[in-house]
Amino acid sequence: MASSERNLQTCEVPDATVQRLPLYLEKLKLLQAIGVEDVSSRQLAESLDIKASQLRHDFHYFGGFSRPGRPYRVEKLVTALEQIIGVDRPVPTAIVGAGHLGQALANYPGLQLQGFPIRAIFDVNPKLLGLEIRGQPVRDLDDLEPVCRREGIKIGVITVPASSAQEVVNRLVAAGVTGLLNFAPTELKVPGHVSVRHERLTVGIMALSFKVKCGALARSAAGNEPGPLAGSA
Amino acid sequence: MASSERNLQTCEVPDATVQRLPLYLEKLKLLQAIGVEDVSSRQLAESLDIKASQLRHDFHYFGGFSRPGRPYRVEKLVTALEQIIGVDRPVPTAIVGAGHLGQALANYPGLQLQGFPIRAIFDVNPKLLGLEIRGQPVRDLDDLEPVCRREGIKIGVITVPASSAQEVVNRLVAAGVTGLLNFAPTELKVPGHVSVRHERLTVGIMALSFKVKCGALARSAAGNEPGPLAGSA
Repeated sequence: MASSERNLQTCEVPDATVQRLPLYLEKLKLLQAIGVEDVSSRQLAESLDIKASQLRHDFHYFGGFSRPGRPYRVEKLVTALEQIIGVDRPVPTAIVGAGHLGQALANYPGLQLQGFPIRAIFDVNPKLLGLEIRGQPVRDLDDLEPVCRREGIKIGVITVPASSAQEVVNRLVAAGVTGLLNFAPTELKVPGHVSVRHERLTVGIMALSFKVKCGALARSAAGNEPGPLAGSA
Repeated sequence: MASSERNLQTCEVPDATVQRLPLYLEKLKLLQAIGVEDVSSRQLAESLDIKASQLRHDFHYFGGFSRPGRPYRVEKLVTALEQIIGVDRPVPTAIVGAGHLGQALANYPGLQLQGFPIRAIFDVNPKLLGLEIRGQPVRDLDDLEPVCRREGIKIGVITVPASSAQEVVNRLVAAGVTGLLNFAPTELKVPGHVSVRHERLTVGIMALSFKVKCGALARSAAGNEPGPLAGSA
């Protein structure tokens, strides 16, 4: 589906579907890498441990991608999903906050590989200025606006303490950045045209704790046999 | 609801609900901290930008928590959710892989605060051994099994390269760990009684990229006015 054919309707998509799009793309790129040319909705869904009906429902928002009963062409689907997600071209990304977490993200090769090259890193700590991370020097926060405008930064990753996050957000927004990936454990105020995603580590580990507790309950109820609630991989 | 009253039924809960439980707990603890004693389902749902019906549906799995039409007692709900999630007592956690990401997680105060004290950190890199992170020394991977058993580690955080992840998983499972928080970009094989949660950074940033793209489409369709698709905070 050419970009010009997409209408606003393809943006009226439930959040749960938006979360699954990258998983589909990741799996399809794996298949592509090992030379698979076609995949059915059932095969693709099974490989991701979801229902085929869910997958087809998700794809339906974007036109379905294939005739009913016909498999998907892996290459075409990869191209379409990259376009839909917006990684058909690099998405210039900046990291604000070069502490442990910011450096971990800057060092993570997957970001560049998936289409999010780190084009700038900022911090206020004078000891970090000039430190090179994968070829990017840590810059002073005061340079944020001109550097972000020059690099055309689209996504700002916020890895500063909660107390500094809103100020950083204000600067990124003033610099024309419209997507914020927030790791600071705080809410943020943004204008209507800016999108925010909160990455909450504690949510993940708590969800896991719930599953672990359920697993233990199942085992003790069954007399210490491995529980029926299979761990997912 | 006392722990002894919980039956296995409360573990037959959709993943989407499990993901929201920590968000409810986090918000309720905030309310508790500022002295709020009662909150209605509508107020709580609005504060989290979700539908009140969704919230009530989620809580229904666990017995509902209040009489219809009556608000929730914040303190009681916090206690109940902590128990359900499994953070009514500390959940001893270990980090395997003391690189940038592992150190970032070990340094993150929120983990301990939310009930996941880091009781052990492991690595294979001789330069990292003995490095103290918030009072925890980095230990040799060979000590993993005895240390994890001694500390009663329940959750293992995996922050090693993809190529090492499965071996680390095997060791953690052999050490009696039943919950794995995986940051390595690879699938893992685990026995049925072990729960795994994959933290995929690229999923988050891609979901954000989709929203950014939709925002830009909306603005260009509306003639460069801020789009109707409000950014969420």
